[in-house]
Amino acid sequence: MTTRTVISSPTREVIIGFDQPFCVIGERINPTGRKLLAEEMKAGDYSRVQADALAQVEAGAMVLDVNAGIPLADEPKILAECIQLIQSITDVPLCIDSSIMDALEAGLAVYQGKPLLNSVTGEEESLERILPLVKKHGAAVVAISNDESGISTDPDVRFAVAKKIVERAMDHGIPKNDVVVDPLVMPVGAMNDAGTQVFRLVRRLREELEVNTTCGASNVGFGVPNRHALTGTFISMAAAVGMTSAIMSPLHAEQMNAVRAANVLNGFDPDCGNWLSANRPQTEAGAEAGGRRGGRSGRRRARASSE
Amino acid sequence: MTTRTVISSPTREVIIGFDQPFCVIGERINPTGRKLLAEEMKAGDYSRVQADALAQVEAGAMVLDVNAGIPLADEPKILAECIQLIQSITDVPLCIDSSIMDALEAGLAVYQGKPLLNSVTGEEESLERILPLVKKHGAAVVAISNDESGISTDPDVRFAVAKKIVERAMDHGIPKNDVVVDPLVMPVGAMNDAGTQVFRLVRRLREELEVNTTCGASNVGFGVPNRHALTGTFISMAAAVGMTSAIMSPLHAEQMNAVRAANVLNGFDPDCGNWLSANRPQTEAGAEAGGRRGGRSGRRRARASSE
Repeated sequence: MTTRTVISSPTREVIIGFDQPFCVIGERINPTGRKLLAEEMKAGDYSRVQADALAQVEAGAMVLDVNAGIPLADEPKILAECIQLIQSITDVPLCIDSSIMDALEAGLAVYQGKPLLNSVTGEEESLERILPLVKKHGAAVVAISNDESGISTDPDVRFAVAKKIVERAMDHGIPKNDVVVDPLVMPVGAMNDAGTQVFRLVRRLREELEVNTTCGASNVGFGVPNRHALTGTFISMAAAVGMTSAIMSPLHAEQMNAVRAANVLNGFDPDCGNWLSANRPQTEAGAEAGGRRGGRSGRRRARASSE
Repeated sequence: MTTRTVISSPTREVIIGFDQPFCVIGERINPTGRKLLAEEMKAGDYSRVQADALAQVEAGAMVLDVNAGIPLADEPKILAECIQLIQSITDVPLCIDSSIMDALEAGLAVYQGKPLLNSVTGEEESLERILPLVKKHGAAVVAISNDESGISTDPDVRFAVAKKIVERAMDHGIPKNDVVVDPLVMPVGAMNDAGTQVFRLVRRLREELEVNTTCGASNVGFGVPNRHALTGTFISMAAAVGMTSAIMSPLHAEQMNAVRAANVLNGFDPDCGNWLSANRPQTEAGAEAGGRRGGRSGRRRARASSE
């Protein structure tokens, strides 16, 4: 049994799947908490959006999330313009990310290919507004496992919400493999069982519901020191129990190297090819991908501990 | 359902268990591949053994593996002397590690407390010689899942061998929870599915056989660059699917921080207390535990990527 979610740009197809390497969705193009980026985007200056897009793809992002959620700005217009810009300079598929219906519609109207739409929830209004849009455009969709009652701390309730969304999507003619469930990751600094909740849920989502999964991985380390190392470990553990993608930061070496290592250990890096190219300090590729630091410090410690 | 393997020194008890933080067994006191250490141990100079014992405990080892396998040396005598020395300077329980019956007996004869004996295999001769020794001394034992036919690449065969050892142990009056199964970790550089084999096996060992598990973790990254980062990710992924201990290197920050992160994410580090103390660069504890590098570089990157 395998499940594949295929998304695409005009020239590239990316598969999120049980039988595929972990799919890295770059989180960076999002003005939330980035004041300067928000101001620039609002003023129609997309130079930083462009730079962030290129940097993430170079660092290993296979898909880019694009969010233009800026208070009091014309979000539909900005989101559409950013999508057009990014599609003109990269060939990775995009994840169109907004909480506003008009912005999602504007993004879908200009997008070339089959995007991932982020997101639908289990709330009745969301289901009835977003799912027809997903169907109309033949998109795939991120399904977030909360509903009118909020985010349950009971993984079984979150599983039931996810199941409801998947069933409703199928009622709308959307195939199950076009729904990628986000089990919702809480900060582990605030909730000690945030990790175990997600791991349990991911396993059920994969084995019982047979759907692909994603999450906003960086959230797990919110407020905790050495956050990106914790997030990297989280991603690899989630991949071990069956998570197939994450919206994450490819610009942090700890996160990307955790994905690369998880791919090696899950059998998705034949002959360790990607690991080798990212972790050989002498190659430019390794250095650019953030592997140099890892490689160097690894060697330094190895020397220090040998006799 | 939980399974606990209790081992002890005269003054400290350590529990390997489904409901416990991951148990770090220090691998360092082992002359295999350490020519200088081998020569010193053979000559009766245990200064490096002493230093390695203290350094590993300080770095977070909860148990120390002690191996004295030196060609043409008096292994039983050396192993017994090392055990006595280490027990005189630390209070952690030990894992008595030898492939020679006389050495295991000599180690058991001088050990104070309940040790972990490393190891019994599924080979008939091993079962019939080692298990009575385990029973006689009331020890716990590492069960390696290979037999006369060697190490199978089929995880189902390795599971069957583990099951046979556990059943035979019970026939000898050894409780199941005193058998810690080593599913055998191959170098992933030589065998692409080494990781998936182990993950699948660990899950079955935990869920079907309900036993604790361990492995020689460093082996997974043999011959691969940035080896300790790969090993760290392996350990956290193994912990995600249910592995409860590993014979590993606490002196490598990548491995120890992976264990700490896995404990946080598996819900075994209340309020992230251990993570915080190891990853706060301003504290001496963090620096000594190898957390300083991680903390610092993490912050540096965070700054570099903010605006």
